Amino acid sequence: MHDFKYINNELYCESVAIKRLTKKYGTPLYVYSRKTLVDHYRKLKDAFKSVNPLICFSMKANSNLAICRTLVKEGAGLDIVSGGELFEAFKAGASNKKIVYASVGKTKTEIETALKHRIFLFNVESLPELAMIDRLSAGLGRRQAVAIRVNPDVKPKTHKYITTGKEENKFGLDFDTARDIFLNRSGFKNLDIQGLHIHIGSQIVDSPPFVKAIQKLVDFVEEMEEAKINIKWLNIGGGLGIIYSGEKPQTAREYAKTVLPLLKKVKARLILEPGRFIAGNSGILVTQVLYIKTTPMKTFAIVDAGMNDLIRPSLYDAYHEVLPVSSPSYTIPREIRKYDIVGPICESGDFLAKDRKFINLKEESLLAVMGSGAYGFSMSSNYNSRPRAAEVLVDGNRHTLIRRRETYKDLIRTQI
Amino acid sequence: MHDFKYINNELYCESVAIKRLTKKYGTPLYVYSRKTLVDHYRKLKDAFKSVNPLICFSMKANSNLAICRTLVKEGAGLDIVSGGELFEAFKAGASNKKIVYASVGKTKTEIETALKHRIFLFNVESLPELAMIDRLSAGLGRRQAVAIRVNPDVKPKTHKYITTGKEENKFGLDFDTARDIFLNRSGFKNLDIQGLHIHIGSQIVDSPPFVKAIQKLVDFVEEMEEAKINIKWLNIGGGLGIIYSGEKPQTAREYAKTVLPLLKKVKARLILEPGRFIAGNSGILVTQVLYIKTTPMKTFAIVDAGMNDLIRPSLYDAYHEVLPVSSPSYTIPREIRKYDIVGPICESGDFLAKDRKFINLKEESLLAVMGSGAYGFSMSSNYNSRPRAAEVLVDGNRHTLIRRRETYKDLIRTQI
Repeated sequence: MHDFKYINNELYCESVAIKRLTKKYGTPLYVYSRKTLVDHYRKLKDAFKSVNPLICFSMKANSNLAICRTLVKEGAGLDIVSGGELFEAFKAGASNKKIVYASVGKTKTEIETALKHRIFLFNVESLPELAMIDRLSAGLGRRQAVAIRVNPDVKPKTHKYITTGKEENKFGLDFDTARDIFLNRSGFKNLDIQGLHIHIGSQIVDSPPFVKAIQKLVDFVEEMEEAKINIKWLNIGGGLGIIYSGEKPQTAREYAKTVLPLLKKVKARLILEPGRFIAGNSGILVTQVLYIKTTPMKTFAIVDAGMNDLIRPSLYDAYHEVLPVSSPSYTIPREIRKYDIVGPICESGDFLAKDRKFINLKEESLLAVMGSGAYGFSMSSNYNSRPRAAEVLVDGNRHTLIRRRETYKDLIRTQI
Repeated sequence: MHDFKYINNELYCESVAIKRLTKKYGTPLYVYSRKTLVDHYRKLKDAFKSVNPLICFSMKANSNLAICRTLVKEGAGLDIVSGGELFEAFKAGASNKKIVYASVGKTKTEIETALKHRIFLFNVESLPELAMIDRLSAGLGRRQAVAIRVNPDVKPKTHKYITTGKEENKFGLDFDTARDIFLNRSGFKNLDIQGLHIHIGSQIVDSPPFVKAIQKLVDFVEEMEEAKINIKWLNIGGGLGIIYSGEKPQTAREYAKTVLPLLKKVKARLILEPGRFIAGNSGILVTQVLYIKTTPMKTFAIVDAGMNDLIRPSLYDAYHEVLPVSSPSYTIPREIRKYDIVGPICESGDFLAKDRKFINLKEESLLAVMGSGAYGFSMSSNYNSRPRAAEVLVDGNRHTLIRRRETYKDLIRTQI
């Protein structure tokens, strides 16, 4: 569900016509609906309200400060993966008490900075990292709360690049190592090892992999409780899939209905780390057709957004729905054709969509690439020396530029 | 061939120890050898000197101003693909007379700017683009030289994302359409349609695809000559492969030996557009090991460079050789193990190399990812809110910071 809808054949974000936004801000343009963003957060919050979880928005999906600030104001915490995201989290107004920090490669400097800011929780991914955090906490005279990320070895059906809970992945620790850590936690004098963390991947639409992973987690917590080890926090990560095409992902309510009974037996409080679920369908990438090119094999709509703006189709073979911003009038003759929607970048991997049917697509037509609110701008680059797109946040009938378009000068700003 | 070599078990770029550079500039760090860069340009120039071609360095491979300036000073022209690259080309000191502009998606503004700067040649990719350049030239009272990019429908053995000369690709025009254009070129009153362009892809290591494509081009030129149409420029693009692993790519000399006899019969002057061939092996990405992580399945060396710094392994399944910056001493016990070299980014697609053997790899070890001079920094992003790496150019025993490392503040600079 989202708030991008046609009114009189024109695509709107809430009460603002997309066409109006492109006139003011140009293309390519990321447009976000505040309402959609907040609604998705609230849906998750409501579904789990019986256990009052800490919901930490996963900033890597979209770290725009205005987006994060909107969620922080709703009460969300933030799930960070780098020192850069820690910096941004504070700029977005997050409380240090609601920041959880995951990453297999936290540097010494990043850890020290996070410790100094007294963030809530580190999700620890390896033994040497655990030792490093312990050592650095000692140096700062602090005692830091940590959760151990375990790798439950489940195989969700999603792109191989975004499964993270299989045994061959770089993430987390096996249960045997986790058990050793908990049983010997007095050895880490400066750490309060009080949580367990899993994150099995991203864009997972069905519940069995979650059930399987969480069951393993619960079994482990019970085993620990028998050993008189109290686990206070159960972080079940993110990974909830959204609708890009014909997916029928579980709703927040269905997810809660599946997950909560599993957790009844444990006392630990719950942490959720949704990213795509909250931001994915709250944003679109608007692009303009530059040329219609017909070749003996195909018809291409060459648009002004490329793989530097949205790399998901190239990198993950991801499907994004593409809609016309102005739906064609039915009074004129209709010509339905199949198009490849491709960008201006000089490689064949630069495509947004393949073999899609449109009516009367022509130069200057505007297209909306749906579901671009997560892993869209955050993965964008300057490849082919293309300035990065602008971002606009819509709230009812108001619209705010939340990131200005880069200029050519920005491209060389750090060159000396 | 390149100028990264071990001296007393330490990796050097020309006369500078890589370790010294990392102490001064930190990691991850791109390091380029000026000598390697210039040598590759000269090799190509020498190999083709009998026909004195215009060699235009393909900026999309590496658009750092210092890199481009170095080649411009050697006499190179620049092959651009966007308005951003045009801007950078002039900043790098390029002459407008040596700029060729290819892209399937040139915008109106980009074309107008290029026309105003009187660039040498547009490589035109479609009929509507040809009409657009004609119209805009008229508006500026100019007559612009253009080349028609033809798609020769050959299938080189390379990654599907970087083949560009197959019939189903978005690039170029078929020969029938090109014939129509040349026969009716008086219809484009503001254009001097005087060239033919092909570019069949990138990282092509053997000659047959080039021979096949160039032969088609030559046949077409002869056909046009019979029709009294004089083609002045033959732009055979880039695409020459380099050594990443065990490839045995044709040398510049071998390439010239194959290509020049084919071109004997035509009078047109030659244009070459090498990118990777010149810059690829002139640069490395230096990274530091953060953690060694052993799991039941694998041993990971988690390093401080990720897919945001170098996306080629993830995106193209590309192989890059990875070398230790300090080769281990043979007097200590040797432990040879297989490692996956992975970055700190939170997805399984974030790897630089898999199953590579190293001796005694440990925390703080430095590694050099070879062959990172092309499509390395130019494709880098801020994913996971990671500031982009610094770049250093080495010339003999001197080293110059040619792009400073981004800061956290840079991440939010364009947010309002």
